[in-house]
Amino acid sequence: MSGNQYHVAVVGATGAVGQQMIQTLEERDFPISTLTLLSSSRSAGKKVMFKGQELTVKEATPEAFEGVQLALFSAGGSVSKELAPEAVKRGAIVVDNTSAFRMNPEVPLVVPEVNESDLNDHKGIIANPNCSTIQMVAALEPLKQTYGLHKIIVSTYQAVSGAGANAVTEMKEQSKAALNGEEYTPEILPVKGDKKHYPIAFNAIPQIDVFEENGFTYEEMKMINETKKIMHDAELHVAATCVRLPIETGHAESVYVEIGRDDVTVEDVKELMKNASGVTLKDDPSNQVYPMPLDAVGKSDVFVGRIRKDLNQKNGFHMWIVSDNLLKGAAWNSVQIAESLAALNILK
Amino acid sequence: MSGNQYHVAVVGATGAVGQQMIQTLEERDFPISTLTLLSSSRSAGKKVMFKGQELTVKEATPEAFEGVQLALFSAGGSVSKELAPEAVKRGAIVVDNTSAFRMNPEVPLVVPEVNESDLNDHKGIIANPNCSTIQMVAALEPLKQTYGLHKIIVSTYQAVSGAGANAVTEMKEQSKAALNGEEYTPEILPVKGDKKHYPIAFNAIPQIDVFEENGFTYEEMKMINETKKIMHDAELHVAATCVRLPIETGHAESVYVEIGRDDVTVEDVKELMKNASGVTLKDDPSNQVYPMPLDAVGKSDVFVGRIRKDLNQKNGFHMWIVSDNLLKGAAWNSVQIAESLAALNILK
Repeated sequence: MSGNQYHVAVVGATGAVGQQMIQTLEERDFPISTLTLLSSSRSAGKKVMFKGQELTVKEATPEAFEGVQLALFSAGGSVSKELAPEAVKRGAIVVDNTSAFRMNPEVPLVVPEVNESDLNDHKGIIANPNCSTIQMVAALEPLKQTYGLHKIIVSTYQAVSGAGANAVTEMKEQSKAALNGEEYTPEILPVKGDKKHYPIAFNAIPQIDVFEENGFTYEEMKMINETKKIMHDAELHVAATCVRLPIETGHAESVYVEIGRDDVTVEDVKELMKNASGVTLKDDPSNQVYPMPLDAVGKSDVFVGRIRKDLNQKNGFHMWIVSDNLLKGAAWNSVQIAESLAALNILK
Repeated sequence: MSGNQYHVAVVGATGAVGQQMIQTLEERDFPISTLTLLSSSRSAGKKVMFKGQELTVKEATPEAFEGVQLALFSAGGSVSKELAPEAVKRGAIVVDNTSAFRMNPEVPLVVPEVNESDLNDHKGIIANPNCSTIQMVAALEPLKQTYGLHKIIVSTYQAVSGAGANAVTEMKEQSKAALNGEEYTPEILPVKGDKKHYPIAFNAIPQIDVFEENGFTYEEMKMINETKKIMHDAELHVAATCVRLPIETGHAESVYVEIGRDDVTVEDVKELMKNASGVTLKDDPSNQVYPMPLDAVGKSDVFVGRIRKDLNQKNGFHMWIVSDNLLKGAAWNSVQIAESLAALNILK
């Protein structure tokens, strides 16, 4: 990294991911000259601590981006669509954590462990992938690089914090009510804007985001399409089933893959994972060692375990991938992109 | 069914599944002349209601099976291994809900919707399959019959009641503690007899039952081996990843299958499921209709939804299968076997 310091803005500074971004910028000691915290007019005026200083959150307007060099957006798709181009117009590079620009062919979609060099092609906006996509591609890229990768079938076990802080509150209140035998009317999950709401406490909801025409949810199609884009392989077969569960933080994924060779052993895959950047192998069945959401909270790595060779398909493997959806799935991957931008001298 | 009435015994009468068996026998009005309730010496003496009468639970000994024509066992594998042969010796037909005899080639392993006629080959003992296997094969058999079935890849979302009533208590106490920010030391899950115990509240544990040498758990191998046996297809490719979740009752499964034809549509599969015995189709994405554990509790059917055609594999389909693990997964399937035994005049 150069010795430069940057004027950084965080948009959505009072949200769950925005708060994690600010904390991660502090923990990583990202070189910041000025930190501008932005939000909707409703949250403007709130105070947020950064490196021992109290900063006041301001309303996100086009003019608020004057002088900003790097803007991290996590305030919903409509805010990004409106304000990211305004930030770029004023000279900022935008790292956007919403789905607004992810599939735009002009916008790099980046997980640094997988496709850091795509950052060189940016035209102002860089997209941060969906949380459930990030942890999966980070774990599978070493397999792809070493053996080739043909097929992915994933079933997710997703935490409620992925739907925002209000959804977590709903889950907790609802859990208390259920344990006390009381009624509780859900109003948020599975999708705030959809017609019906279902209880998440002691339940499993096989819907994340709205349904598409083809019967897959938008979340499932995000995993399918984003994976192909990040891995630069339009021919890769990807299928996803996404399920919301009563877990506060930490997405888990049961993943089946078919790789390009038949002679690979479980030990080979474990060795690969041990040496993979951003990945921690947690896989010792005889001692009941495997990743779990509760253990992943607050950690930036992607945890991989339960690696098994398929009993019939010689190039088939099963594994279990867990990560903190607010960190590697969102805030940490965004800050990691910022670090890459500085290291590659793209952010000057 | 003939007009006969039978002397029936329930072994494990005070357990979660035993209680459901007694209730199901009552609800189905199974023709019973005498109901003998048996348990360990620890629970003997307890009173249980059946059709308005108070019955006293007696200790399960070999002699307790004198005169018994049908014995439903659900008191753990070691009790079945010891006492099921004693019951058979005294003239009873045993329906065993443990894993003790399931893979014994002399013992039929039966889900009535799939292989009822296997009952004709019994030699005294009939095994009730594992809960997660039953609901899957009940939903997939119509596909196999109509189109052929080559491959199954399943990831489960399993409820805590599958591990017994004490595990449910642990989950509830632990959930309360977590919501109050208090410590709680788990002592039961993932497996009572295993070395380490992990929290289930707001977590996901990718271990059900103990680990085998090949890295799969015993639960996963049960799903793999039992499915092949019930479906009479040793060549069927089956892979399973089994996960315990903070859900009280109702197992869910994300299932990928490859069938024997390329030209089948989602509508074809829905039509099959609509007409399948013991299966209820719940699949209308535009109205957010899909099966969930909370909705399945107390119902005997297997619920199927989220049916999608794979986007790459022409003979590939994804679906979401939910059922009450204590009913179709255990008590109801056992009583259903008893009804079949009477209807087929095997139980005389």
